Amino acid sequence: MLQDILSALNLVGIVSFSISGSLKAFEKKLDLLGVFVLGFSTALAGGIIRDILLGIYPPTNLRVMDYPLLAILGSVLAVFFYRYIENLSKALLIADAIGLGTFTATGAEIAIEHGLNVIGVAILASITAVGGGVVRDLLSNEVPSVLKRDFYATPTILGGLIFYPSYSLLGGSSALISTFVFVTVLRIVAILRKWELPKVGLSR
Amino acid sequence: MLQDILSALNLVGIVSFSISGSLKAFEKKLDLLGVFVLGFSTALAGGIIRDILLGIYPPTNLRVMDYPLLAILGSVLAVFFYRYIENLSKALLIADAIGLGTFTATGAEIAIEHGLNVIGVAILASITAVGGGVVRDLLSNEVPSVLKRDFYATPTILGGLIFYPSYSLLGGSSALISTFVFVTVLRIVAILRKWELPKVGLSR
Amino acid sequence: MLQDILSALNLVGIVSFSISGSLKAFEKKLDLLGVFVLGFSTALAGGIIRDILLGIYPPTNLRVMDYPLLAILGSVLAVFFYRYIENLSKALLIADAIGLGTFTATGAEIAIEHGLNVIGVAILASITAVGGGVVRDLLSNEVPSVLKRDFYATPTILGGLIFYPSYSLLGGSSALISTFVFVTVLRIVAILRKWELPKVGLSR
Repeated sequence: MLQDILSALNLVGIVSFSISGSLKAFEKKLDLLGVFVLGFSTALAGGIIRDILLGIYPPTNLRVMDYPLLAILGSVLAVFFYRYIENLSKALLIADAIGLGTFTATGAEIAIEHGLNVIGVAILASITAVGGGVVRDLLSNEVPSVLKRDFYATPTILGGLIFYPSYSLLGGSSALISTFVFVTVLRIVAILRKWELPKVGLSR
Repeated sequence: MLQDILSALNLVGIVSFSISGSLKAFEKKLDLLGVFVLGFSTALAGGIIRDILLGIYPPTNLRVMDYPLLAILGSVLAVFFYRYIENLSKALLIADAIGLGTFTATGAEIAIEHGLNVIGVAILASITAVGGGVVRDLLSNEVPSVLKRDFYATPTILGGLIFYPSYSLLGGSSALISTFVFVTVLRIVAILRKWELPKVGLSR
Repeated sequence: MLQDILSALNLVGIVSFSISGSLKAFEKKLDLLGVFVLGFSTALAGGIIRDILLGIYPPTNLRVMDYPLLAILGSVLAVFFYRYIENLSKALLIADAIGLGTFTATGAEIAIEHGLNVIGVAILASITAVGGGVVRDLLSNEVPSVLKRDFYATPTILGGLIFYPSYSLLGGSSALISTFVFVTVLRIVAILRKWELPKVGLSR
């Protein structure tokens, strides 16, 4: 039952990530194809990169038709309702935090099932969650925002580090749920408290 | 026989894509290595990404020596004859449209033979055809032009969508030829009529 | 014994590449996560891309924990000692040239063992050695420096071309050592003599 809830929340994450990518395409004045490509990439590229690194092909996000269709749905929603989306920015931030949590948890599970060590699990969990946003920013010709500001990728790395011992101690289901809750709550707290990682500048 | 023609046109596509990448390297004031890397990437990176996503390794474009050699030939031609290439711009646009058609058709065929659904076939056909140009633009530190302007990637997505039913209804050869003709003709019409996709701006 | 020396020099390469990536992150004013990501990518992304192209998964640089730990060490050293690193710039250039040589030699060996032809070996040797720097520059929103200036990637391509016949003529160990020496010495000579590849400009 808990797993069904997590699956449903995963779909929420795909749609909200796709909306975020589509909005970026509006900001960069891309054309309609660019909107769909950025929505698709933001929602699904992280999982695709994870599958490539683990030798899972064709990647799940291309093989199971539901996922591309949900990403397309996110772009369609963004195109038709972008005037109203500004009023929904808080709801979108929460949906994004939910996506961050489910993507981290499922990415960590797949990585551990493919025999990776704790560092590999943390890296692949994080790539699953934030890799799509990195691709979105690269296609937008910008430095990926996760490398510059916010406390956004850090919860996903910590989530992967927590998943690894939880999986052997508590089993798969509990590890999935607790990692999801940890990442999503930590991200929402980071938004509310405006957390930032320190910068290490070259003082010239 | 028709398949032989398609193979020959595929080689035309590799050389013309490589010339387009090499010209981009001149424009961005890259050095001689940059010219060869951008020529190679524009011609062959789309097929390499497709093969990675399908688990075909080493990718065909690295395994079969003819393809890198043809890409290198394109760069050599660009280096020696770039003063005359402006006069050939119409011929190059047609050669590029031919490459777009053959890359789409062969990409769609490989994707369907690896069991992908219709959306996956459309995505991989399009990546085969335009992925190299996206890599060229990323290496040039620009937003990929296919996301911003022209009616360039759209024919390849439509071509993949058409290939899928054609393959089961008409068989492989007919699907290949009809997809090639559809994409190449649609691209040439788009050039002549200066088609553009609409943009969805954030009116702020 | 010689192989042990090469393995040790490979570790030197990982740490020095990671320091170079971390310094780039300081320059681009990234946050602490960005420092670790750029250090990791510069040190390990080239080998990861090589493994993806050859179907080796999970990639060695993720599977063997020592490599990510050494990359993290490089970033930690850069964070704590960046004030002193300017005084070490000559030592870092030599360490970087050593990394370039070992990465080229090991990349070429893995490629030839996976059945690639001479062009494929040269490409994969070069990707192993300079691919991490390309990823660093793409994440920094810059044109990869190897495409614009210096005589940096060229020794790695020549090294791969030399490795191919050496491997069948002299055997694996001798090919590894001679390729390493060739690439590292050529790179150091190029630094001392300030070699650059020619540019092919569009004189408009």
